[in-house]
Amino acid sequence: MKKYAFGVDLGGTTVKIGLFQNDGILVEKWEIPTDTTDGGENILPDIAWSLKEQMERIGVSSEDVAGLGIGVPGPVDEETVVHRCVNLGWGVFSIRERMNGFLPEIPQVMAGNDANLAALGELWQGGGKGYKSAVLITLGTGVGGGVVLGGRVVAGCNGGAGEVGHMTVNVHETEQCTCGKYGCLEQYASANGIVRLARRILAKSEKPSALRTMERFASKEICDLARDGEYMSKMILDCWGSYMGRAMSYVSCTIDPDVFILGGGMSRAGDVVIDAILRYYQGFAFHVSQGTGVVLAQLGNDAGIYGGARMILTD
Amino acid sequence: MKKYAFGVDLGGTTVKIGLFQNDGILVEKWEIPTDTTDGGENILPDIAWSLKEQMERIGVSSEDVAGLGIGVPGPVDEETVVHRCVNLGWGVFSIRERMNGFLPEIPQVMAGNDANLAALGELWQGGGKGYKSAVLITLGTGVGGGVVLGGRVVAGCNGGAGEVGHMTVNVHETEQCTCGKYGCLEQYASANGIVRLARRILAKSEKPSALRTMERFASKEICDLARDGEYMSKMILDCWGSYMGRAMSYVSCTIDPDVFILGGGMSRAGDVVIDAILRYYQGFAFHVSQGTGVVLAQLGNDAGIYGGARMILTD
Repeated sequence: MKKYAFGVDLGGTTVKIGLFQNDGILVEKWEIPTDTTDGGENILPDIAWSLKEQMERIGVSSEDVAGLGIGVPGPVDEETVVHRCVNLGWGVFSIRERMNGFLPEIPQVMAGNDANLAALGELWQGGGKGYKSAVLITLGTGVGGGVVLGGRVVAGCNGGAGEVGHMTVNVHETEQCTCGKYGCLEQYASANGIVRLARRILAKSEKPSALRTMERFASKEICDLARDGEYMSKMILDCWGSYMGRAMSYVSCTIDPDVFILGGGMSRAGDVVIDAILRYYQGFAFHVSQGTGVVLAQLGNDAGIYGGARMILTD
Repeated sequence: MKKYAFGVDLGGTTVKIGLFQNDGILVEKWEIPTDTTDGGENILPDIAWSLKEQMERIGVSSEDVAGLGIGVPGPVDEETVVHRCVNLGWGVFSIRERMNGFLPEIPQVMAGNDANLAALGELWQGGGKGYKSAVLITLGTGVGGGVVLGGRVVAGCNGGAGEVGHMTVNVHETEQCTCGKYGCLEQYASANGIVRLARRILAKSEKPSALRTMERFASKEICDLARDGEYMSKMILDCWGSYMGRAMSYVSCTIDPDVFILGGGMSRAGDVVIDAILRYYQGFAFHVSQGTGVVLAQLGNDAGIYGGARMILTD
């Protein structure tokens, strides 16, 4: 078995790159800026150049490198074909083919959606270590998701697997989601979504809340106040949990994973968000799946590079 | 490669058995009664005895048999362990281990949930032939489901994958589902469910309908009348489609399959049910999955034995 693999997490502003040993140890980690000019044409050559430069610097020969796994912020199918990626200016093309052109000495190139790769990374060396299948739900600006079954990423036929954030959880919603639909989980459960939910719940009530006195508040303030027992914040987090728990029960009714891993900024609130989810998840889930665990992600922003390397370093 | 495999579909009253060639041709098919006395202890020995008898009769040697795949009406995990099966009187045990005791000459024993195996069979030789991943939804007394990704059955960590019928699609339901929850898809979308839905919709309206003149009606009458353009039946089927389409969009947001296959009695209504589903599915699905196909199952009651054989006869 070769000694090393690269994991790459391609974001809209920076590219994170990690060099991993085949036992999962992260040896080196660095970043380069993402050049989105010219339809993102320079992104892959920039990565190739940076890898070559670092290999020379560290003294790693291409013969010791098993391959390179790249996470992309958009839909990628199982043949590494990206299906448009607005943030990068990318259209439809095979990442493997193009990368092979720039880095012919690296034997294997894999690619996947960044959320799916983060799930794979967390299952390998993070919060899901020891489990066989997991669904990662990232609670950031949006609600992302990644699905790993039996150690393999499920990308979906159109790259749409793990889009838990776009499950319609409220058929009566009148405001539009960024995806064009109405009532998506993301509209209530993302870091922005819970603030929107809070404003609605506060507007319908006369009850006092510290949130009313704040000029601006974010998911952190809601979670902190709920943890302190403030009535309105507990109500808001409870409503959030009802949407999350129901959406997660839909995931369980489809694939019944071993564990759910919560990532993204809002997951830092820890137990208080897990408790809010479980209160509802256990009621909505089919009886055999009611005990499915919910754990916190552990790799933070490195989950994607771990997942990229894991695409190459399979057991 | 060995020449043959057995597929077994274990039902509450009969056991269907098929002998398949490795190219998917069904050579022989027969049934034996299911003996549920003594906690279902005789079921596996009865199957073993029947297989031996038929092999002798047809002149197939155990050396030509690659194995035996069994579909069970209950949750079965990836190690062939059945987790209680009320209809058969079964507790928790390994089907493979027990069957090896009765049929040591058969090299491989696999087992899975009957709905999952039906999905595998339909994907192999039925409505899903040519696709890589499929979700089968059976519209019978209940709503069953089976998930196959990349040619492999997804059983789920607790055997709960494919339980699409127990997704909560109505949080305001006051009647209980057989599973103990409230508002499961099955309560509206099964053959019984649509009749219940019809009674509710008819009771809320004064509009005439041929259904009102019938002493009893079933899903067939509703679908037939809807196809003929009868207003109330169209309304009922439309409401049915809204539940089905939404639940199927949840499946797509989780695993984004190539195709949905509709099976069970109600699927015989054909286009009229597919149209009712698509009207809503396309609105609820995330944009990349809006074009996912919905096709009809083709193997009828034989889907399970095809799937059992397919567990053994992988590509």
